[in-house]
Amino acid sequence: MFDPVEVLKAFVRHQSVSTDPAFHAGMRGAQEHISETIRGLGFEVEVVRTPKHPVIYAHRGGDASWPHVIIYGHYDVQPADPLELWTTPPFEPTIRDGRIYGRGTADNKGPLLAHVTAVGRILEKNPDFPVRLTFVIEGEEEMGSPSFRGFLEQYRDRLKADFVMLSDTGIPSRDQMVITCGLRGLMLFELEVTGARMDLHSGLHGGVLRNPIQALAELCASLHDADGRVNVPGFYDDVREVAQWERDELAKLGTDTAEYQRFLGIKEFHVPGGFTPFEAVRFQPTLEFNGIGGGYQGAGSKTVIPSRAFVKVSCRLVPDQKPERIRELVYKAIRERMPADVNYKIHDGHTGVPYVVVPPGRSNTPRDQSPVLARAFEAAEKVGTEVFGKPPLFIREGGSVPIIAELNSLLGLDCVLIGLFLPEDNLHAPNESFDLSIFERGARVSEGVLRAVAG
Amino acid sequence: MFDPVEVLKAFVRHQSVSTDPAFHAGMRGAQEHISETIRGLGFEVEVVRTPKHPVIYAHRGGDASWPHVIIYGHYDVQPADPLELWTTPPFEPTIRDGRIYGRGTADNKGPLLAHVTAVGRILEKNPDFPVRLTFVIEGEEEMGSPSFRGFLEQYRDRLKADFVMLSDTGIPSRDQMVITCGLRGLMLFELEVTGARMDLHSGLHGGVLRNPIQALAELCASLHDADGRVNVPGFYDDVREVAQWERDELAKLGTDTAEYQRFLGIKEFHVPGGFTPFEAVRFQPTLEFNGIGGGYQGAGSKTVIPSRAFVKVSCRLVPDQKPERIRELVYKAIRERMPADVNYKIHDGHTGVPYVVVPPGRSNTPRDQSPVLARAFEAAEKVGTEVFGKPPLFIREGGSVPIIAELNSLLGLDCVLIGLFLPEDNLHAPNESFDLSIFERGARVSEGVLRAVAG
Repeated sequence: MFDPVEVLKAFVRHQSVSTDPAFHAGMRGAQEHISETIRGLGFEVEVVRTPKHPVIYAHRGGDASWPHVIIYGHYDVQPADPLELWTTPPFEPTIRDGRIYGRGTADNKGPLLAHVTAVGRILEKNPDFPVRLTFVIEGEEEMGSPSFRGFLEQYRDRLKADFVMLSDTGIPSRDQMVITCGLRGLMLFELEVTGARMDLHSGLHGGVLRNPIQALAELCASLHDADGRVNVPGFYDDVREVAQWERDELAKLGTDTAEYQRFLGIKEFHVPGGFTPFEAVRFQPTLEFNGIGGGYQGAGSKTVIPSRAFVKVSCRLVPDQKPERIRELVYKAIRERMPADVNYKIHDGHTGVPYVVVPPGRSNTPRDQSPVLARAFEAAEKVGTEVFGKPPLFIREGGSVPIIAELNSLLGLDCVLIGLFLPEDNLHAPNESFDLSIFERGARVSEGVLRAVAG
Repeated sequence: MFDPVEVLKAFVRHQSVSTDPAFHAGMRGAQEHISETIRGLGFEVEVVRTPKHPVIYAHRGGDASWPHVIIYGHYDVQPADPLELWTTPPFEPTIRDGRIYGRGTADNKGPLLAHVTAVGRILEKNPDFPVRLTFVIEGEEEMGSPSFRGFLEQYRDRLKADFVMLSDTGIPSRDQMVITCGLRGLMLFELEVTGARMDLHSGLHGGVLRNPIQALAELCASLHDADGRVNVPGFYDDVREVAQWERDELAKLGTDTAEYQRFLGIKEFHVPGGFTPFEAVRFQPTLEFNGIGGGYQGAGSKTVIPSRAFVKVSCRLVPDQKPERIRELVYKAIRERMPADVNYKIHDGHTGVPYVVVPPGRSNTPRDQSPVLARAFEAAEKVGTEVFGKPPLFIREGGSVPIIAELNSLLGLDCVLIGLFLPEDNLHAPNESFDLSIFERGARVSEGVLRAVAG
């Protein structure tokens, strides 16, 4: 049996930034590292080529009557910039005060390895463990999983299973486990505005044309109302009423808004009316500006009227918003509001459908769930309570794991989402880290769920 | 006598970007190159240290009864980025179709060398030419001339003169010379908005705080009204009524708005009501966004809520707006409009006072002008007509040469501004170039003015 922390360190050292072609070697290294680790546990590992980054399909079969559990994870990570804000380099994993620092430690290399560790421990003690197990580990999660649907279609027959287990969601504190029951969807795009055919001298030509930065700022400013709601007609039409059990469960979170505010380092919250901050990130959709650029950004000044400016936008969506419908509505608003004196282009980004699952006993109208899935949820609750010291919460999360919705819509699979990362883990941000005691707890919960599934 | 084009080529090769410390060697090279050239004409050259880049003070004296003309220029240039848009490298001067391409060819190395060439030709033929001449060539024009006022105060006694001649302004076409009679002033600043203490995951935290890009866009969008006027109370209060002779003179420009629009490559003009595009750039103040940045700007997407965003802003001012007053008004509007849930900082940039001079015979209330200056204006008109084939126009220009106003307010000097660069010269932009036939015409006009001054 391997040493989980050493395997994680080596995993993090591979600079697997999927969105940037410069990191090709790191992608390959990360893929080979995790493939080798799983092969070492007795799995047959297949590296499935896709148009971009391969999917790792690793299977350990058995009797057809055994339950079948798929474990999902991803070996790619977010870009690490701005590098200067990292205390230690992002791809040199460093342990300080019980945490391992490095890009991907929490998203998703650490949590994925918690499951691999659980499987390793089970098979070491019981090589004939009566559950069929499949790892599906992709390399495109951080770029919106463009090849994943194709992979699911191609491997559809081999992916018949009772449920999917994964950890790519969060928990509020070290002693509060969460079984994530819903995720927000996504719709991304980039808007590019152009004015004159080249950058112009702002003295010689200033005053005769609309500056593309001005046009872009005016457009962006139109997309929210004063309350913080998205100002696009129809945007909220399909937002599903939140069930009472969800509000009740979230209320148990015992969250402290003052502490959350301190953590964010903001002067005030800016939340649409009628929601607490904790509700807003789970139950409400957003439209966020992820990046903006145009003109001269260097030191000092350069008095130009730039030829072009752009903004990168992401919408987080909640059930039952449909990404393509939201795309249409937002683009329509842009079309209607963009002044006629500039040109613009919209570049589509990826989308992801929002997801919600109702765990056993949580609703008056339960869905027809597999008894194996019900056993898994119950075990997660029981073992989670033992390992974390209090019962897990079944709540939604604000993030997006678009493949969850695809597994559901394409293969009919529901997911057991074992939250493992903490707010202070700094996902997608400088100084990302993962708590090593949570790493161990995650492995123990995963082991408990799999053992319960075996019956 | 030197070959003007060869001297210009060597001048352009020195990468003299004053705003960026990385170009220290280029600044020094350009300074030495032009100093040597002028020393070669028999001038005593003094390189005057300042806190940033030295001023070249070059003098050729004579009898105290002779007129004294100062010729101003600058050896620094704008940054050359974006480099990928240049057809040939910005610091490798290249001649194509009668134009020399390179950063600084038109602003200001070529036009400055036209005057140096004129002086060289005069002194070659007549070493006892009865005019005292002083070159003042600074290295900080593109950064707002922060040391120039100190230099003027220090050299005040040696800068008593009849007028200053320079070419750092433009002409509308190759056959239409312009004597520039007014320039816009400047007021620059940078606005930086910060939200959370770090970049945040837009899924985990999106919906609870105001995104700094959003706050910045909303602020920027508030700074213009739908008509394109600057939406800052009091901004237009001090704008001086334009004299009728100025409108009449400008009407002679025979300008073609359709051609101007084609040149800019814009779909429509966006001009505040009541002004033509040609009037607007000369008679109206502006507030322009020169650059904006924040969050993720690389390839693909990164779904963050950035911690910070910034915008670089420049106001062009007209008589009698006062830069410091405009600064107060704009900052006040920002203070009042910035939402309380973000932090912001404003970084002051440089300022320049607007300038206007009334040439002889152009007004019913002429200022008390030196007879030498009047001779210079008359000669410029006469020689300009001979060289360019039609009479020069006496009009304002939209650009800013803040030192003009300082020469005027501090030393009481008026300026003869001989416009030389064309709209297609792409000042401050990629593929800057300078027309070699204009270079030669400029030298001939400069020579004519100086000979007329001699009497």
